Amino acid sequence: MAINPIELSKAYRLLNHGPTVLVTTAHGEQRNIMAAAWNMPLDFDPPKVAIVIDKNTYTRELVLASGSFAINVPCRAQAEMVVKVGSSSGRELLGKDADNKFEAFNLSTFAASKISAPLLEGCVAWLECKLIPEPHIQNTYDLYLAEVVAAWADDRVFSDGRWHFEGHDELRTLHHVAGGNFFTPGESLQVK
Amino acid sequence: MAINPIELSKAYRLLNHGPTVLVTTAHGEQRNIMAAAWNMPLDFDPPKVAIVIDKNTYTRELVLASGSFAINVPCRAQAEMVVKVGSSSGRELLGKDADNKFEAFNLSTFAASKISAPLLEGCVAWLECKLIPEPHIQNTYDLYLAEVVAAWADDRVFSDGRWHFEGHDELRTLHHVAGGNFFTPGESLQVK
Repeated sequence: MAINPIELSKAYRLLNHGPTVLVTTAHGEQRNIMAAAWNMPLDFDPPKVAIVIDKNTYTRELVLASGSFAINVPCRAQAEMVVKVGSSSGRELLGKDADNKFEAFNLSTFAASKISAPLLEGCVAWLECKLIPEPHIQNTYDLYLAEVVAAWADDRVFSDGRWHFEGHDELRTLHHVAGGNFFTPGESLQVK
Repeated sequence: MAINPIELSKAYRLLNHGPTVLVTTAHGEQRNIMAAAWNMPLDFDPPKVAIVIDKNTYTRELVLASGSFAINVPCRAQAEMVVKVGSSSGRELLGKDADNKFEAFNLSTFAASKISAPLLEGCVAWLECKLIPEPHIQNTYDLYLAEVVAAWADDRVFSDGRWHFEGHDELRTLHHVAGGNFFTPGESLQVK
C-alpha cells in the first residue's frame, strides 16, 4: 500500500459519499481525537468542509487554540475503536497515566504535512484542515468551517479520484446511523 | 407500504449515514427540485440540518422567497432521475411547455404537512425544513441552515429509528462520489 497525495480539487470526493470521520487535533503537548458523523464538503476548489464539534468537547478547545484539525476517514477494521473514541472524553484523561485518547486506546499516528494535528494510522483517507474563523456559527450552532490544505488516501481503496473497495472489505468506510449501528458501502453503480 | 411520521428527535437518523438528497421548493406557482450531496444533520432536538445550495440555482431563489424547503431522500430505483435532476436547471425551463423539472421529468409529488414545498413520490424519507436565516454564511459559503419541522419515512426500509434495507435493494439510499458514480449501503454492522 501507499499513502498518496490527493489533488486538492478532488479532495471533496473523500467525504462526498457521507462517511463518519475522526477529528484529530493538537496544540502544544495536548492532543485529542473525536468521532464526527456530521461533516460535509462545502466547496470544490479551494476545498472547504463543514463539521459539527460540540461545545463541551476537548477537541473544540484544541481546534480554537491551534486553528487547525485533521479529518481522518476510518474503515470497517476500526469500527470498535471509532465507537470507543466517540463515547469517551479526552478531557477526563488529563493528568492520568494514559493522559490522552491516543495512549488510552493505543492509537498510532503519523505527522501531517501542513498542520500540527497527528494523522491516525489505519484510516483510509486524511484531510488536513485550517479553521476559517466564523465565531457566530461556531457559538450558535457548534458549526466549524475549514479549508482543506492537504489530502491523502490509501491507494488500495482510493485512486484516480474514486473509491474502489472491491477485495478490501475491511477498508470500507463507516457510515454511522445511531448507537453503534453502521453501514459500509456496498454496490457501486455508475449512471451514464 | 406506509409513509410514517418520524419522531423529531430521531429525524437526524434519516441523514446520519450520508445519503445524497433532493431538495424541493415551492413559492406561489413556482417550484423546483435539485440534487444535493452536501448535507448533514446539525442538531438533535429540535432537529436542524445544514445544506449547500449554490448561488446560481433557481432553488436558492425559491428557498429565500418561501423560507422553507424539503429534503427528499431518494433510492437506487431513482438513480438515473437523480443524475438528470442534478444536471439541469429549473430556471431554463421557465416559459417552456414543461415549465418545471417535475413536468419535464414526469415526477409525481404529494403535499407536505407544514411547508409549501412538494414531497417527491418514490423517495424513502422526507424532512420538511424551515430556513434559519443566516445571510452571512448563505452569501459567503452558499451554506443554508434549517430546522426540521416534520419528517417521514417509508416503513419498508425505516422504522423504530433505524434503516433496514434487507430484501429491498431498489430502496437503498444513494451516496454520490462524483460524475454519476454512487454507492448504496451494503453490510450493516452493530458495534456493542
